[in-house]
Amino acid sequence: MTATRTETDSFGPLEVPAEKYWGAQTQRSIVNFPIGWERQPVPIIRALGAVKWACALVNHEQGTLDARLTGAVTQAAQEVFDGKFDDNFPLVVWQTGSGTQSNMNANEVISNRAIEILGGTMGSKDPVHPNDHCNMGQSSNDTFPTAMHVAIGMLARDVLLPGLEKLHAALAAKSEEFKDIIKIGRTHTQDATPLTLGQEFGGYAHQVKMGIARVNMCLPHIYELAQGGTAVGTGLNTRKGWDVKVATHIAEITALPFVTAPNKFEALAAHDAMVMFSGALKTVASSLFKIANDMRLLGSGPRSGLGELILPENEPGSSIMPGKVNPTQAEALTMVCAHVMGNDAAVGFAGSQGHFELNVYNPMMSYNVLQSMQLLGDAASSFTDNMVVGTKANVDRIDKLMKESLMLVTALAPTIGYDNATIVAKTAHKNGTTLKEEAIRLGFVDAETFDRVVRPEDMIGPKD
Amino acid sequence: MTATRTETDSFGPLEVPAEKYWGAQTQRSIVNFPIGWERQPVPIIRALGAVKWACALVNHEQGTLDARLTGAVTQAAQEVFDGKFDDNFPLVVWQTGSGTQSNMNANEVISNRAIEILGGTMGSKDPVHPNDHCNMGQSSNDTFPTAMHVAIGMLARDVLLPGLEKLHAALAAKSEEFKDIIKIGRTHTQDATPLTLGQEFGGYAHQVKMGIARVNMCLPHIYELAQGGTAVGTGLNTRKGWDVKVATHIAEITALPFVTAPNKFEALAAHDAMVMFSGALKTVASSLFKIANDMRLLGSGPRSGLGELILPENEPGSSIMPGKVNPTQAEALTMVCAHVMGNDAAVGFAGSQGHFELNVYNPMMSYNVLQSMQLLGDAASSFTDNMVVGTKANVDRIDKLMKESLMLVTALAPTIGYDNATIVAKTAHKNGTTLKEEAIRLGFVDAETFDRVVRPEDMIGPKD
Amino acid sequence: MTATRTETDSFGPLEVPAEKYWGAQTQRSIVNFPIGWERQPVPIIRALGAVKWACALVNHEQGTLDARLTGAVTQAAQEVFDGKFDDNFPLVVWQTGSGTQSNMNANEVISNRAIEILGGTMGSKDPVHPNDHCNMGQSSNDTFPTAMHVAIGMLARDVLLPGLEKLHAALAAKSEEFKDIIKIGRTHTQDATPLTLGQEFGGYAHQVKMGIARVNMCLPHIYELAQGGTAVGTGLNTRKGWDVKVATHIAEITALPFVTAPNKFEALAAHDAMVMFSGALKTVASSLFKIANDMRLLGSGPRSGLGELILPENEPGSSIMPGKVNPTQAEALTMVCAHVMGNDAAVGFAGSQGHFELNVYNPMMSYNVLQSMQLLGDAASSFTDNMVVGTKANVDRIDKLMKESLMLVTALAPTIGYDNATIVAKTAHKNGTTLKEEAIRLGFVDAETFDRVVRPEDMIGPKD
Amino acid sequence: MTATRTETDSFGPLEVPAEKYWGAQTQRSIVNFPIGWERQPVPIIRALGAVKWACALVNHEQGTLDARLTGAVTQAAQEVFDGKFDDNFPLVVWQTGSGTQSNMNANEVISNRAIEILGGTMGSKDPVHPNDHCNMGQSSNDTFPTAMHVAIGMLARDVLLPGLEKLHAALAAKSEEFKDIIKIGRTHTQDATPLTLGQEFGGYAHQVKMGIARVNMCLPHIYELAQGGTAVGTGLNTRKGWDVKVATHIAEITALPFVTAPNKFEALAAHDAMVMFSGALKTVASSLFKIANDMRLLGSGPRSGLGELILPENEPGSSIMPGKVNPTQAEALTMVCAHVMGNDAAVGFAGSQGHFELNVYNPMMSYNVLQSMQLLGDAASSFTDNMVVGTKANVDRIDKLMKESLMLVTALAPTIGYDNATIVAKTAHKNGTTLKEEAIRLGFVDAETFDRVVRPEDMIGPKD
Repeated sequence: MTATRTETDSFGPLEVPAEKYWGAQTQRSIVNFPIGWERQPVPIIRALGAVKWACALVNHEQGTLDARLTGAVTQAAQEVFDGKFDDNFPLVVWQTGSGTQSNMNANEVISNRAIEILGGTMGSKDPVHPNDHCNMGQSSNDTFPTAMHVAIGMLARDVLLPGLEKLHAALAAKSEEFKDIIKIGRTHTQDATPLTLGQEFGGYAHQVKMGIARVNMCLPHIYELAQGGTAVGTGLNTRKGWDVKVATHIAEITALPFVTAPNKFEALAAHDAMVMFSGALKTVASSLFKIANDMRLLGSGPRSGLGELILPENEPGSSIMPGKVNPTQAEALTMVCAHVMGNDAAVGFAGSQGHFELNVYNPMMSYNVLQSMQLLGDAASSFTDNMVVGTKANVDRIDKLMKESLMLVTALAPTIGYDNATIVAKTAHKNGTTLKEEAIRLGFVDAETFDRVVRPEDMIGPKD
Repeated sequence: MTATRTETDSFGPLEVPAEKYWGAQTQRSIVNFPIGWERQPVPIIRALGAVKWACALVNHEQGTLDARLTGAVTQAAQEVFDGKFDDNFPLVVWQTGSGTQSNMNANEVISNRAIEILGGTMGSKDPVHPNDHCNMGQSSNDTFPTAMHVAIGMLARDVLLPGLEKLHAALAAKSEEFKDIIKIGRTHTQDATPLTLGQEFGGYAHQVKMGIARVNMCLPHIYELAQGGTAVGTGLNTRKGWDVKVATHIAEITALPFVTAPNKFEALAAHDAMVMFSGALKTVASSLFKIANDMRLLGSGPRSGLGELILPENEPGSSIMPGKVNPTQAEALTMVCAHVMGNDAAVGFAGSQGHFELNVYNPMMSYNVLQSMQLLGDAASSFTDNMVVGTKANVDRIDKLMKESLMLVTALAPTIGYDNATIVAKTAHKNGTTLKEEAIRLGFVDAETFDRVVRPEDMIGPKD
Repeated sequence: MTATRTETDSFGPLEVPAEKYWGAQTQRSIVNFPIGWERQPVPIIRALGAVKWACALVNHEQGTLDARLTGAVTQAAQEVFDGKFDDNFPLVVWQTGSGTQSNMNANEVISNRAIEILGGTMGSKDPVHPNDHCNMGQSSNDTFPTAMHVAIGMLARDVLLPGLEKLHAALAAKSEEFKDIIKIGRTHTQDATPLTLGQEFGGYAHQVKMGIARVNMCLPHIYELAQGGTAVGTGLNTRKGWDVKVATHIAEITALPFVTAPNKFEALAAHDAMVMFSGALKTVASSLFKIANDMRLLGSGPRSGLGELILPENEPGSSIMPGKVNPTQAEALTMVCAHVMGNDAAVGFAGSQGHFELNVYNPMMSYNVLQSMQLLGDAASSFTDNMVVGTKANVDRIDKLMKESLMLVTALAPTIGYDNATIVAKTAHKNGTTLKEEAIRLGFVDAETFDRVVRPEDMIGPKD
Repeated sequence: MTATRTETDSFGPLEVPAEKYWGAQTQRSIVNFPIGWERQPVPIIRALGAVKWACALVNHEQGTLDARLTGAVTQAAQEVFDGKFDDNFPLVVWQTGSGTQSNMNANEVISNRAIEILGGTMGSKDPVHPNDHCNMGQSSNDTFPTAMHVAIGMLARDVLLPGLEKLHAALAAKSEEFKDIIKIGRTHTQDATPLTLGQEFGGYAHQVKMGIARVNMCLPHIYELAQGGTAVGTGLNTRKGWDVKVATHIAEITALPFVTAPNKFEALAAHDAMVMFSGALKTVASSLFKIANDMRLLGSGPRSGLGELILPENEPGSSIMPGKVNPTQAEALTMVCAHVMGNDAAVGFAGSQGHFELNVYNPMMSYNVLQSMQLLGDAASSFTDNMVVGTKANVDRIDKLMKESLMLVTALAPTIGYDNATIVAKTAHKNGTTLKEEAIRLGFVDAETFDRVVRPEDMIGPKD
């Protein structure tokens, strides 16, 4: 039997575990929402700490919270921000759609911790009340959306962008490493004109570079915070300037350029900035899928595939086929990308479903966006370390495939015309011969002209 | 410092925590896939236990596994099935797309546990080898898809269907309870002709009933198991009849009607049965969304909404607005439904992405489908207990709204024609009068006819 | 200047083109909804003809519509059903969400045509009124959903299922044709154990067979018709039995087993049967995507790809690369499949958005479902005719790739153990040698044993 | 029997209708792709005209196309750009995934028209060859993606942005018109604290304003053109600077700031800019859905709904219920929004599916994006004209609902504390009394304090 403490809310008393700091509303949510396994993500908890900390500071500056309570509340909130109370946030994602219960979870933990700091009795709400003090000037309706944006901003900086930047650097390095390897191009999965392997990886690198740019392009709207809108966007129960000051403090606490949202009604009733940001994540997923899929196909084999890339061997590939090695990092990444597309669909749906002054899909939307960010950042990093960096070019095979290609005939078209070039390619294909043999035999060019015109090294860029 | 034990695979030795049963391939996966927080769901772990148990039995029956090893392996596998080793499955969803590493996790845990049972040394692979004995006659390529289907079958029976059936029963009971309450209908969100509140809830109940039917309609294909296809669907390294026998044992172990899949190539290379099943889950989500959304709108108020339903009060609704009560269960459920739609998009995408003999989106597809099932089952149950059961009709308000409705004029149309009835309704609307007043004033009917024809209680069904 | 005729509705008079049969409400919709290019699909128009025809017959049987009017209305409705008035249905999809304006379009065309038949003046509503006679016993709220189901039922029979069945037959024939061609399997895109090309195509055929089964499994709910629910599901302004009789007539007219829906409230307020049906279409799309994608990859080359299949050449492939041939049918089909997945997402979303007694996403949902059906049916047929039928096996290349594969070592594992077999494969891979050479050199087997055990023809099924 | 002309390509001769300008490859595509009804959208045709025009100019500038041919080709291309040949582009969306056949359609129409201008014989390819002259320096692989971007750029300027700007202006005007009307707020669909109707519409206006900003934010990447990459991104068969010059000419022709893409490999193999742009469209859809849904709910009634807005009456609403008026514009718009979300899912999927040097989902991706743009632009415009502009506030009802609200108690919380304020609200709710009565009766405040503190007009913004 666990020791318990009695906590109360307007619905009555409830027993909570004695060693936990949460109160009655958190406990009530545990009881009322036995749904799924998905808890509020840690970045949300930390962000709530930052928000509560900033709000207490502003309440003190505006004279509504005295120095003693401010000191205790800010210390407690900072501890939440620092991760010391992660295990005091037991609530699942599938609760009230405003995130009220997680906001109250933060208020309750902070008030009880502040009471403890001040030598009071936990559960007494004295001298620190979860609503009157920790939630002062706030509503869940602005606080939770603020925490969502703060969490996204921090996770972008700490996980998503570092992962993408690492991947970009590795692909760019491979592009440089492979810049002199001429290979066959493939369009429609069919043989096409040549390019360098460096150009191919350069395309991948550019995709990731643009993905980073797209994420950064969307962040300014994420940096706009709803705090100060309170219940319906009007800012009832705040003082003028409160919203700006809170955003300034949050910016300082997190070292990110948060500002107050220009329209609080929009900020509560819609989450368009998150829908758009999720669209950027989906675009990144689309890019990474293509890169990972290409690399596993180019590395297919070892004997019966395309075999142009030699992928690193990281672990046994098969429980039944001895010696098999699989492109498992590409698989993890493509699974992540497909999952992110699903998350994006859920976020778009939820974003459209606000009613009047509030969108009540907060915990679900933030769960999906944060999950997509964590997965893309982690998977990009793992894919880089465990696959891209160790990938080598199978130079002999690349050269062999390139030289056999019938599509080198394209270089001949400006000289002999598209229709004649077609005849050369088709005849060589039919006879299993070379382009040169057929081009000469058919009388379209002489050997010297062919050798001068059909040079793979001259086909990888525009003519001077 | 944690004590460790040396385990080996074909890539070399690795240290694993001494108190854990997993081996080198599991440990290697932990190192190589630091991606996200989502572990393999518990139902997958249990299902792997069932599969390994059944396979060992068949290997013994077919004479390839001796009695001593069979005894130890089946005991260990049963313990996995019973949930005694849940904490020995540390791998994340985002690993190799075949689930090989989780299959090897099961093989490693079972072989080490079997070694322990037989008095050997864990990590020695003697006398029980994770591949040669625990994976005998199996490949990850058939084992993991089998575990996916087994997990879905069990979770459907244990969580999804009970949740939906509870909800159906509650809605059907409300339909009966409310069968004599005549209320205004609403189409296009606008006032329409009357129906009973019981009819309205009867529509909800029918949706859920059909949802249950749809899930059940899709289960037979889920009951088809890939086991016996081994590496590419051919059944290499099994004996004839192995597949049928394994399915029979799994059916017995789980008490569900599993059978062997008629085409193992399809069963490995595609997961169409899961894509279809996910479509049924999405359909259920679509139904539940509509029901929950209707109920919160019908229960909107308490003073400035539609106010036809009185929803139960479960917890304080607002951190800033005292006394506010919100339809939080409807919010949790609609968030779940939107999330399930996202999962379905991810599953459909992944299902299309098989290459040749294998689809490598297994862990991601099963994670999404199982999550959707758990969420729908749990949320349906919580919504029932905490919202539907306690919902009451606000009879006075329902009656008032119904009687004021201009759409009762529809009953008059067969008598005076659509065009004249239109004039009556529009005039009453314009003048703020009643239909009766205007119908008589305009000379279309006399009072007696009006009273005889326009009777809400006669408008809730076809005429005799 | 076009000649016009004056038509009126309760909002006043409007000029319509004199040669057209539609009336004021249709014309008003043209003016009020200048949105997009997507007109109501032809199958919806035809289905409205069937519904109006059946309703008039029942109204006559129940004594509410006299013989003369019945004759004219049924003739006009049959003409709509037969396609004679397709160009009299100008309305776009993006109109009122109940489809009221298209229902009125049908009522107006039929009433004016019936007036014409009876020698009256078009636009006079005499002797046939679009609402009082053509819409007798009906509401758009039951009529349009009925037309949606009727259209889907007919298009399934006439386009979708024939297309899928043609594809299934062709794939099954290829499976038989290729049944003796042993080839390398590929899992994770990497070399794996062998199977026959017939088995590979057999997997594809089974996918399509099950897709047909899934469509058929969902059709019974599509055969349930909303007609008889009228405005809100109660059947107001109908007589008992009306609903059953209408369904019976529609079944006769269309030669499909339509029945009346068991719960009309559900049938108006939700379209779960369509959401589920769309899920089946998505599952088919997922299957066809996999098949088409595999075939183009197996047919990649002609010189630098996998090259196992020789795909038919249908047209010049490139505007710049002479002689290039591309798997264009696979491209059309995979584009269709991706599009169908998008349609499914839209349908699932819309299906959840009913309010109270009505879902007002009818034209959009039916447009998406019918488009998916037409595209899948057409593309399956075109893919069959222009790609599958003409596909040939490149037997020499298949044989060469198969024999070089290191994964034949899997057959050796039961004899020498998984770990030793791994050493053989890895050594052969490293040294560029054969499995046999290394297996003997490493002392695991003698030549005779190797030849007896490692036989591709024995690896394509379970042992006796 | 239609008169025909013989056209040829490398697959042989084909008869085409004599009055049409297209050639053999177009005709072959008609035969080979009998799939669906969706033709290449007109904006793609016009954009192909612009591209061909610009390319001919640069070919002349670089000395590869003589003045006579240049004159004829540019005249013909300009005619395509001007829409004179829309009916000469019969191909469907579901063709080769590179759009090669539509590119050849443009080449064929332009070459035959140029031949006609120069007095030659159509079909002779002399003196203007579709490949050698009209496609000079081009591949479908860069031309079609270029046309996609050009079409999107033009449609954004001509349809999408004007529609959104019109809507924004109308919502902003309503926000100003309604700025003094204080109304009840609603969160969780339940009564909340007050705001002005102007603030509510100001939130809507801000959503649309940001949507416009998001579209504009994504356009610069759309302005990057693939032209100059030719077959695989290398620019084979062009001269240095060709790409920059073509983009400059296209910019001049279209009066939009097109530039050459910085990485042609990415521009051919991926369409990330379109995936991102589609995400912006989805975000706009999410916003518009919320606005339209709110407005129909606020306008619900006329007697039994919320009734705060009086929506314009545009047409008869029901075929069965006389006098019914429905929010049909909101329905068209929400259908459009749901459809756009489906399109976005399809685009994201397709965008991830490039293989190696080419993405072959071009026609499908551009069809979806252009359709979404047309629909959003048209529907926003129609919604503005036919719904927003005519919407009026029902001032009396708004005032009544606001004054009855219990959530005015929130203003009291800073004075008497959250817990006491809760008691006041709950007691008033239970007793059906007013807040003031209960607050005084319970002894928390006197009447004067209540009247001073609880003033709706002071609750619509922060305190000074």
